[in-house]
Amino acid sequence: MTQGFWKNLFSSSENNSTTTSSPKLEEYVVPTSNNGAGGNEEIRVYFSTSREIDLYDLEELCDAVGWSRRPLRKVKKAVQHSFCVVTMWEIQGAKKRLVGFSRATSDHAFNATIWDVVVHPDYQGKGLGKALMQYLIKKLRKEDISNITLFADPHVVDFYKNLGFVSDPEGIKGMFWYPR
Amino acid sequence: MTQGFWKNLFSSSENNSTTTSSPKLEEYVVPTSNNGAGGNEEIRVYFSTSREIDLYDLEELCDAVGWSRRPLRKVKKAVQHSFCVVTMWEIQGAKKRLVGFSRATSDHAFNATIWDVVVHPDYQGKGLGKALMQYLIKKLRKEDISNITLFADPHVVDFYKNLGFVSDPEGIKGMFWYPR
Repeated sequence: MTQGFWKNLFSSSENNSTTTSSPKLEEYVVPTSNNGAGGNEEIRVYFSTSREIDLYDLEELCDAVGWSRRPLRKVKKAVQHSFCVVTMWEIQGAKKRLVGFSRATSDHAFNATIWDVVVHPDYQGKGLGKALMQYLIKKLRKEDISNITLFADPHVVDFYKNLGFVSDPEGIKGMFWYPR
Repeated sequence: MTQGFWKNLFSSSENNSTTTSSPKLEEYVVPTSNNGAGGNEEIRVYFSTSREIDLYDLEELCDAVGWSRRPLRKVKKAVQHSFCVVTMWEIQGAKKRLVGFSRATSDHAFNATIWDVVVHPDYQGKGLGKALMQYLIKKLRKEDISNITLFADPHVVDFYKNLGFVSDPEGIKGMFWYPR
């Protein structure tokens, strides 16, 4: 997998954040090799922690990976009450496309739990999921959260292991309650 | 294990909740058999979801089960930002003693994660941990939370299984991030 890099990580907009209402975007550049055609391109994506997300964009993204539809009213509530929300965008000219999403719940002190990690199929296999997670982890660490947790489906356990996650450390088991 | 029962589950104070400032308590009665001495006693405990907790009481409770001390400033923040906090009390005359605690983080819509489940050693083995968890689950379900999760240490996995929790359902793994 090609290794991307962060650019403009601390953008100049931080200096005049009181005078601008547009949320800060952080750029991430992934070098990709053109398949057989020779020459290289780059993919540039942009990360944001703004919660001002078009819920239909988010629904379209989740549809693209085959998730079951959820009531937008509840999705809105979940986004509002998540501790951290990260969106990943491709920007071409004036067009912005939502290509990734993730969020975490937290007690704002010790624990965070990551939910709803999604990367659009067109953008998978390019290291962008890794970048998305690294961005979210960085944000959580910055807030002094020491315990970052998640529940991983079997096919993504290795993906998270590569990011530094350990499954069942010291025998701790993830458990889900089912009504009887 | 003896089976307790809820009493005054919908206490009369609900009817005049606008005229009283004291948080509602719900009573739980556990019949216990006196060891060999003949005759039966009951243990009555009281549950509350009020966040107005003396943090030194909570620290004392956590000390009693041997947990590492945590900065009270952070504990306070975690209690404030938990979605649901449940305390369990023994009341004798005018004396109130904190004998159990639990809390859950949530996105207020889909997912909740339970943290910091603790019952004072003097009150363990009487079904009170079970009552504490059932009370918390009831509260979460009332808020329409469908996915109730937790991370269980190996020695309490069976305790949670008895409550309806399933470990690693469909191969989903609990994972924790460790800094490299």
